[in-house]
Amino acid sequence: MVYIIKANGEKEKFDKHKVYRTCFKAGADERICNEIADYVENKVYEGIKTKKIFELVYRKLSEYSGDFMARYKLREAIARLNPENNEFEKYICRILKFNGYQVEWNRIIQGVCIEHQIDCIAVKDRKKYLVECKHHIKFHRCTDLDVVMKCWAVLEDIINAYRKRIIDEKFDNIWVIVNTKFSEHAKKYARAKRLKLTGWNYPPGESLSSLISDKICYPITILTNSDKIIERFTKSGILTLGDLLETRTDRLQKKLNLSQRTIEKYKKLAENI
Amino acid sequence: MVYIIKANGEKEKFDKHKVYRTCFKAGADERICNEIADYVENKVYEGIKTKKIFELVYRKLSEYSGDFMARYKLREAIARLNPENNEFEKYICRILKFNGYQVEWNRIIQGVCIEHQIDCIAVKDRKKYLVECKHHIKFHRCTDLDVVMKCWAVLEDIINAYRKRIIDEKFDNIWVIVNTKFSEHAKKYARAKRLKLTGWNYPPGESLSSLISDKICYPITILTNSDKIIERFTKSGILTLGDLLETRTDRLQKKLNLSQRTIEKYKKLAENI
Repeated sequence: MVYIIKANGEKEKFDKHKVYRTCFKAGADERICNEIADYVENKVYEGIKTKKIFELVYRKLSEYSGDFMARYKLREAIARLNPENNEFEKYICRILKFNGYQVEWNRIIQGVCIEHQIDCIAVKDRKKYLVECKHHIKFHRCTDLDVVMKCWAVLEDIINAYRKRIIDEKFDNIWVIVNTKFSEHAKKYARAKRLKLTGWNYPPGESLSSLISDKICYPITILTNSDKIIERFTKSGILTLGDLLETRTDRLQKKLNLSQRTIEKYKKLAENI
Repeated sequence: MVYIIKANGEKEKFDKHKVYRTCFKAGADERICNEIADYVENKVYEGIKTKKIFELVYRKLSEYSGDFMARYKLREAIARLNPENNEFEKYICRILKFNGYQVEWNRIIQGVCIEHQIDCIAVKDRKKYLVECKHHIKFHRCTDLDVVMKCWAVLEDIINAYRKRIIDEKFDNIWVIVNTKFSEHAKKYARAKRLKLTGWNYPPGESLSSLISDKICYPITILTNSDKIIERFTKSGILTLGDLLETRTDRLQKKLNLSQRTIEKYKKLAENI
């Protein structure tokens, strides 16, 4: 039994499963998680500090792929977008625009039964999507069937409104974009109904992370964990690194009421990501 | 400005709106809430105890209708059913049976897209319902559109399975039963789709409270707020006052491992409701 020393000086039993979990959360698959947990178990000694353990884990993780930690940080940064301010929805609009979609934020569309408030309308290659965004602060959760079935009901009501000539606008599909995984049930239902789903790692090649492949699409929350100043940026509509880098410093100064130095510090951080 | 004395001895400003809220929660309509709040405002004096205020409120409420408090207690008792044990779903089955429905608890029904786990199937007068129950511990909340739209999607998938001869069973409708109100949006959508909704006070004449009109349908949680012994009853499937009164004491003794005296005490409480 090996005891380790936590950051606050307390002793604690070494728990191999915690290493596994850290790797898993960072996006490593089961095999790699197990290998790293075994590796770390062999390396720990009586009185090793947790900080040292994390170093071992991260070094090993980056041996497997330097991408892991960056991806993990990105995912965490997206989860930190402020739900009260609908920042995730706005952020998704920004990303879709970057990916060549024509985008309209927050539209009311009349269905046969009721009016629907749609987060975003996205158009590309003559396809027109109703976009529904779901943001989870706890990004390790699953988005379940309920959400997808409800979205199908929205699409159906709006398509029927077009068929009955209640509205002139024709929509091709609904597109559900979330920052989590989807449950297997949710995926199965969506496949059967041909709904378009985008989750963190789903579908392969067209996942949320692949929509964010360019660094200027990263959310500005990736610059720091301290939320006070970042909140000023996001509340002023500066949501991505691109927004920050492409807006002139003097304009940002006026908009955000921050010093030139502070803004340039954040711009430098953004450039170095 | 009148100061009142709380149960713990603290002073507090008299707040007329609190009286209003108490009446409203008890199920009184706006006019009555206002009348009682006015009445109590005229009656309070410097240093009156909150207990005394509550007495004034309750006496006045029962003048309007002796029913109010009983109804409020009933609603609270339903909210206290244990969600971990699916007690609300089981309780609804019991009530539907009492109302002449043939009932099957917890069925898997194959749809076109996926299998659906249905809380209950209810049949009466040759109509067959998929029943979906939603239980809120905070019973003052609203059941919103999401729930109802998802239920529509369930019905649609199962009806399509029948049309495509994937299943032989024909269902006439889905029936959403909740212990809260429904939002106006939810009601509007359900009306348009002709879904059957039952909430605490909705629809008039066919609400949850009218399904529970007979006292032997009351949930056993109405007997006491202390949950320890009641939990033994509910976990053994004794969910209503009827279940308690209609099961022989010696059988209950064996089933629940409680003394004869305790069981008879609860039976007497049940008879006096």
